[in-house]
Amino acid sequence: MLSPHHDGSPLHVSTQSPALGETVRVRLRVPASFGPLAWVGTRSNPNREPRFDEAVCIMAPVAEGETVGAVGDGWTWWEARVEVENPVHGYRWLLVGGDGRQHWLNQVGLSEVETRDHDDFKLVAHEPVPEWVAESVLYQVFPDRFARSTAADERETPEWAIPAEWGDALDPEPPGRSAQFFGGDLDGVREKLDHLSGLGVNLLYLTPVFPARSNHRYDASTFDHVDELLGGDDALVRLVEAAHARGIRVIGDLTSNHSGDAHEWFRTAQADPASAERDFYYFDDEAPNGYESWLGVPSLPKFDWSSHELRRRFVDGPDSIVAKYLQPPFGLDGWRIDVANMTGRLCGVDLNGEVRRAIRRTMLAVNPDTILLGESTNDGASDFQGDAWHGAMSYTPFTRPLWSWLQAPGSPAGGGIGFALAQVPVFTGRQFVDAHLRFAAGYPWRTRLGGMNALDTHDTPRFATNARPGTVPVGFGLAVTMPGIPVVWAGDEFGLTGEDGEASRTPMPWGTEQDASVAPVLDAYRRLVELRRSHEVLATGGVRWLAVTDELVAFVRESAEESVLVVAARSAAAVELHVSLGEPLVPFVPFVPLVAFGGVRLVASDASSADVVTASADGPAFGAWRMPGVVAPAW
Amino acid sequence: MLSPHHDGSPLHVSTQSPALGETVRVRLRVPASFGPLAWVGTRSNPNREPRFDEAVCIMAPVAEGETVGAVGDGWTWWEARVEVENPVHGYRWLLVGGDGRQHWLNQVGLSEVETRDHDDFKLVAHEPVPEWVAESVLYQVFPDRFARSTAADERETPEWAIPAEWGDALDPEPPGRSAQFFGGDLDGVREKLDHLSGLGVNLLYLTPVFPARSNHRYDASTFDHVDELLGGDDALVRLVEAAHARGIRVIGDLTSNHSGDAHEWFRTAQADPASAERDFYYFDDEAPNGYESWLGVPSLPKFDWSSHELRRRFVDGPDSIVAKYLQPPFGLDGWRIDVANMTGRLCGVDLNGEVRRAIRRTMLAVNPDTILLGESTNDGASDFQGDAWHGAMSYTPFTRPLWSWLQAPGSPAGGGIGFALAQVPVFTGRQFVDAHLRFAAGYPWRTRLGGMNALDTHDTPRFATNARPGTVPVGFGLAVTMPGIPVVWAGDEFGLTGEDGEASRTPMPWGTEQDASVAPVLDAYRRLVELRRSHEVLATGGVRWLAVTDELVAFVRESAEESVLVVAARSAAAVELHVSLGEPLVPFVPFVPLVAFGGVRLVASDASSADVVTASADGPAFGAWRMPGVVAPAW
Repeated sequence: MLSPHHDGSPLHVSTQSPALGETVRVRLRVPASFGPLAWVGTRSNPNREPRFDEAVCIMAPVAEGETVGAVGDGWTWWEARVEVENPVHGYRWLLVGGDGRQHWLNQVGLSEVETRDHDDFKLVAHEPVPEWVAESVLYQVFPDRFARSTAADERETPEWAIPAEWGDALDPEPPGRSAQFFGGDLDGVREKLDHLSGLGVNLLYLTPVFPARSNHRYDASTFDHVDELLGGDDALVRLVEAAHARGIRVIGDLTSNHSGDAHEWFRTAQADPASAERDFYYFDDEAPNGYESWLGVPSLPKFDWSSHELRRRFVDGPDSIVAKYLQPPFGLDGWRIDVANMTGRLCGVDLNGEVRRAIRRTMLAVNPDTILLGESTNDGASDFQGDAWHGAMSYTPFTRPLWSWLQAPGSPAGGGIGFALAQVPVFTGRQFVDAHLRFAAGYPWRTRLGGMNALDTHDTPRFATNARPGTVPVGFGLAVTMPGIPVVWAGDEFGLTGEDGEASRTPMPWGTEQDASVAPVLDAYRRLVELRRSHEVLATGGVRWLAVTDELVAFVRESAEESVLVVAARSAAAVELHVSLGEPLVPFVPFVPLVAFGGVRLVASDASSADVVTASADGPAFGAWRMPGVVAPAW
Repeated sequence: MLSPHHDGSPLHVSTQSPALGETVRVRLRVPASFGPLAWVGTRSNPNREPRFDEAVCIMAPVAEGETVGAVGDGWTWWEARVEVENPVHGYRWLLVGGDGRQHWLNQVGLSEVETRDHDDFKLVAHEPVPEWVAESVLYQVFPDRFARSTAADERETPEWAIPAEWGDALDPEPPGRSAQFFGGDLDGVREKLDHLSGLGVNLLYLTPVFPARSNHRYDASTFDHVDELLGGDDALVRLVEAAHARGIRVIGDLTSNHSGDAHEWFRTAQADPASAERDFYYFDDEAPNGYESWLGVPSLPKFDWSSHELRRRFVDGPDSIVAKYLQPPFGLDGWRIDVANMTGRLCGVDLNGEVRRAIRRTMLAVNPDTILLGESTNDGASDFQGDAWHGAMSYTPFTRPLWSWLQAPGSPAGGGIGFALAQVPVFTGRQFVDAHLRFAAGYPWRTRLGGMNALDTHDTPRFATNARPGTVPVGFGLAVTMPGIPVVWAGDEFGLTGEDGEASRTPMPWGTEQDASVAPVLDAYRRLVELRRSHEVLATGGVRWLAVTDELVAFVRESAEESVLVVAARSAAAVELHVSLGEPLVPFVPFVPLVAFGGVRLVASDASSADVVTASADGPAFGAWRMPGVVAPAW
């Protein structure tokens, strides 16, 4: 599978944050087996008119007996200079063989048929993404279900809530579904920060913390303060301070698509048709409840972003809600935006771009060192080109393809994860990778690095519920090694299961950490998070697929400093990997095992060379090996 | 190759012009060979949130011995109801087999891996497209090179021009390239309308007719009147009247990206930095000539569409240039917009959507029965979703794929047609169809029908120059039978050649019509235009591919009234086609030959049934056969 390669990583692109008008150097490497080339270069499309920039060869392997030329890792390196003419500047490579055949290379791969613009590589001249975004390992907490502090016992149960004890079974049916109240709070989260530190995560994502009339709190009744049931503003301040002290950042969750119907704005709007708040929503006598709402759910009235007053209060400027919680005393490190995909969109109106850019503009003004993630569970690529969102909470590039490869055949998938008809189609390894690449190809590289590699979330069934036996470390192994932010949905590390997005919100089973069924899972999560955290290349390195078969996939993450070879199998399989071109001038360096789950092995096919290795697995398995960094010309 | 099928045609979609909020019925047909289905329906994405609508079976073939059920053409028909929630409402089909496998069907075809939004089928609720758009056969005239009236002899040659006699060779080098002046005029065009009528075309496209300082006139010096060298306003009025009298519509050509540097607006802007016109352009001391221009060419200064005064004069409202020529006394039937792709785009600014919508809005106000075509020679799909352009003058879905299949291997392709490095890659029939589908899939169905199926244009080399021997009727046969508006670039019907976009602008060789080398070409063009004009299904019918091999492709255009089977081969080949499912209750109807070029034959593989036929060709060949209309349930 050795093939010409390029991606957006620092091995191949001279800067991750080009300015508009800057000339960026981009590099392609081509294996000798690809044959002679008559022309190599890039095709850009500035202002939608194609421009070709010819590349020059900057490094070639030395043939036996030759004494000139630079020494490469068996690859020939080409470099082109591309001027960033638009804020999102697409480019693809063109390789013309000695036989005249044209090969286009874009984010999906090689094609002899001309390709479309949406799969191009992209240079993004919008504001840079904080460096720590790609280095994050995210831990997701649903406050009602994570942990109760002792203070929680003092609080009165609100009238909408149905109180539950921590060990109670979840009630999947309304009204219990949204009203069953376990009373977890923010001091509870703070008291469990040791657990997060122990896992090694460095980014805590809290689902909403504003007052509401449900256990999930996506139906905010105000954004002005933190729910007293969670401990109020002070508890959030305490939690963020304590987390920061441990090197853990914290982000909140905002609903830009809707509020709750008990929201103060909505109540004013209903009571007074002459109020400014009236314009915050879509009142319409023909709508089912007299107003537009999220998927017709009356408790979630939809915002009308044509209201400038709504923008002023919610997203625009230093006095807005968006700004407030990023500043002292709160100091949140960013936002995850709920239902980002539908925000500002209704019928013939589409204000989504304006709203998302307003949110990010405000964040840049008050604290640019923050992250902005948007929920867009399907193909959101057109919204995620770098003008606002750093990454997508989406299930298309990673989660659904992974489930299709690793879930037991015939598995149902409850709502939230977005499988058609709630059935998980069964994929081969090839289909897993094809689906991943198809959806990942829509994003600029930096947006891929900020995308959420989730096995599951608070909205989905738990991955472990129907996973093929032994594949949890395979799945999470891929989450920590494929480009994107690994996500731990609280409880996954305890091996929790749940058939749908409701059933997955089980209160955390504290105290079971030493149980025989829990300890190995917890250990696997810790080791895999550590793998990710201790190898920068897994955060920002390039990715190159080495082998894809029905049962096994292998790829390498690469930088100039180090590389990590990854093998994931869902059952017994073996495949040969061309990991180097056997350039004799590159000394043999043995592979250093980093983690191994299941019977996974890497054996040099020929003891004298690391050219070709056989990767094999006895069953479901995941392994990672350290390799030398890529021998590349200096910039 | 029988496969589940859907397209945007009236066989499969209940209305071509849905209103926002309307519920449209969409239909899928599935061959029995596809196997049993557990679920069939559509997946829409209103406001970017998926919605599934289950289809019901509305017609199934009757098995032997059965007495109930409707009788279909061997296909099972499914119908889903889709509410058009956004102005461009994408949908795809999902078919779940009895084995649980999921099959997505979008404009590219079937996929077991989930697909991305940009290839969805689309329902478009923007203003309807005039019916005649899809029924047009376009004839392109470059006024300086088409025909001289006697009045032309009286005119003085302008100072910029280098006079040439009609039979002179073209001068490909500057200054002759743009200044060589043959003196064709609009009365000359009018005097040759018999030729257009004889060919059967019904839409005349004139490249620019405004005063300029070049033979191509893309460097307008005013838009206020027609060039006196062409006969002035009166000659245009006379031409349009005479054309209309013959049932031929006429469209003009506007440069919305730039004017000439001799344009009155630009001269005022240069002379007076305080003038309103100053804001019509991008003056910038750092730009090569002190202002932005088309690809840096100083004679073509680029418009800055942030100027509202420019919008008012040029595109907005009944007093604008856009409106003026659509109204009496001129009465043009629409516009082709030059460099539509780059219009309004520069660096961080993108006003393209605003400008194109303003142009169409004005046209709708003064005469909605007009056509708007935009030049976008590469992947312009994101601009062509139905909010303004009816079709694209693009080379990606048809022209380049066709050249790659039919040009002699190793052919060069001069500038203008957009082949990388001016080389024509060599495609198999499969690659030809893949490239066509890849780019066509970006457009809504109605935009596909308005796209220009050009073998070549005034900007490209002529197709015949290096075409494989015998393939001109194959190429033009595909132009008249594939979805889109067939284009005849004046002179193609005389067999003219030309190595690039300049050399293809040969003055028309009037008087050679009876030459042995010309007459058969002219005859082929006439017969193929007649084929198109006499079969409505070729304008608006569905398209279903039946066979694709290296050397031969076959498809059928379908409606309830009739079908036309098309076979195109570039060399000797034979293939079996499943043209029906052999439903015994559908009586056998012989295929009626409509046109045949080269040794092309259709023979029933079994004399007792029209189920399977063998299509064969002795060499380059094109044939079309009439078939019965599709047996479909009434709406």
